Amino acid sequence: MSPYAKQTYSARAGGFSNPTGVQLLRLMDEKKTNLSIAADVTSKVELLKMADQLGPYICVFKTHIDILSDYDETVPGALQALAEKHHFLIFEDRKFADIGSTVKSQYASGIYKIASWSHITNAHPIPGEGIIQGLKEVGLPLKRGLLLLAEMSSKGTLAKGEYSQETLRMAKRNKDFVFGFIGQRRLAEEGAEEDEDFLYLTPGVSMAQPGDSLGQQYRSPEQVILESKCDVIIVGRGIYGAADPVAKAIEYRAAGWNAYLKRTQQA
Amino acid sequence: MSPYAKQTYSARAGGFSNPTGVQLLRLMDEKKTNLSIAADVTSKVELLKMADQLGPYICVFKTHIDILSDYDETVPGALQALAEKHHFLIFEDRKFADIGSTVKSQYASGIYKIASWSHITNAHPIPGEGIIQGLKEVGLPLKRGLLLLAEMSSKGTLAKGEYSQETLRMAKRNKDFVFGFIGQRRLAEEGAEEDEDFLYLTPGVSMAQPGDSLGQQYRSPEQVILESKCDVIIVGRGIYGAADPVAKAIEYRAAGWNAYLKRTQQA
Repeated sequence: MSPYAKQTYSARAGGFSNPTGVQLLRLMDEKKTNLSIAADVTSKVELLKMADQLGPYICVFKTHIDILSDYDETVPGALQALAEKHHFLIFEDRKFADIGSTVKSQYASGIYKIASWSHITNAHPIPGEGIIQGLKEVGLPLKRGLLLLAEMSSKGTLAKGEYSQETLRMAKRNKDFVFGFIGQRRLAEEGAEEDEDFLYLTPGVSMAQPGDSLGQQYRSPEQVILESKCDVIIVGRGIYGAADPVAKAIEYRAAGWNAYLKRTQQA
Repeated sequence: MSPYAKQTYSARAGGFSNPTGVQLLRLMDEKKTNLSIAADVTSKVELLKMADQLGPYICVFKTHIDILSDYDETVPGALQALAEKHHFLIFEDRKFADIGSTVKSQYASGIYKIASWSHITNAHPIPGEGIIQGLKEVGLPLKRGLLLLAEMSSKGTLAKGEYSQETLRMAKRNKDFVFGFIGQRRLAEEGAEEDEDFLYLTPGVSMAQPGDSLGQQYRSPEQVILESKCDVIIVGRGIYGAADPVAKAIEYRAAGWNAYLKRTQQA
């Protein structure tokens, strides 16, 4: 049993040095939500409408900015204003996966200038620790935070076993910038108890669908928060694909939050 | 010893089903070059100037379109015209690394519409085979080709061992679309000889520099082509960072080509 999973989010904030991690933990308890929406839409109008409609119910708004067909430079400012209005954090799910010198440019510059507007981003640890160093040089002065992909929810993933273990060790060496993982369960060194607290954000959450034809596999909020002791449920098509996305978001938020209350014995 | 490394590029074309792979193999012998330039620049003027200046000496022009600060929709057309003029292939080094449904959108749409102009792109196999399926649904109808990242040249990389072995198996199951690897050496199933031919493109090539402060490690053209039996040398700062990039490109091209002639006993 994780020594951290029984504590409240805000009580755990003291164990984090990255400012974005601390902010997210506090925000979740204040707003009573551990729900993140995966906004996988291709038009900016849809994206901003979703952020405004669902903003009140979420802690994190996850974007793929590079699938917007009509992206322009007004989008980041509009997203930031909605994050301010509804009190959520923006997470550009870029999955950086190149060597340090390349990801520095990809994160700081280009058309999207991700570091300038996204509180959180993520990276695959495959290239080795240089990827964290490169991103950190850009992100830390802006008080941004990074998540590492320790495991994936898709079929046949190679992110497992020793790969996940080495990812954990990289994260521990970079706690000033790395505050958590994208993963399916909490990580500890083999044969040991968890000795450092991290936040676990879990994609592939759905209360209904079994998966898609391209290898995505789904789990329920209870499985993720209560059984696997992860911290944030990331829901995509299960919410924005519904006839009434707001009603669905309220339903998922309640399922995720009740699982958290049970886990921390507040309910 | 690889049964393929002694054959000429054009003789090997018969073992490939992906049209881009076949085209690249033939182009290399016709143009007598196994040099690819990594065009890691941040302005479109510099990018297009480099493609025009170095185009005559290379087989592949490798881009990071998302680090261009002044990208606009004229860039792909201009690049395609230069590829036509100088007879090289474009390779957008996107390092896709997400689940199938997401990479489909990232490859086909968004601002960059990579599939519409880039002959070659690449992907990390971490998410599992769904990533190949997703990209293939977009790329194959356009006769595009995919490279998988089997190994990386950076320090502490996690792409090694069983990870590389499983990458090879995925490639074998998808030879219609996957024609090669980004890697540091040829791959075979453990304990067996190579039984399928693939093209190996190798980054991190330099005749001078030992590495950078963010974990990149370099090898010479001879080490890559002659010792490791890879097929294409990818050179970045070693060429475009030189006082006379054209002279440097000619030098690297000769080094890579002579190593190939030695390997195939044509010299």
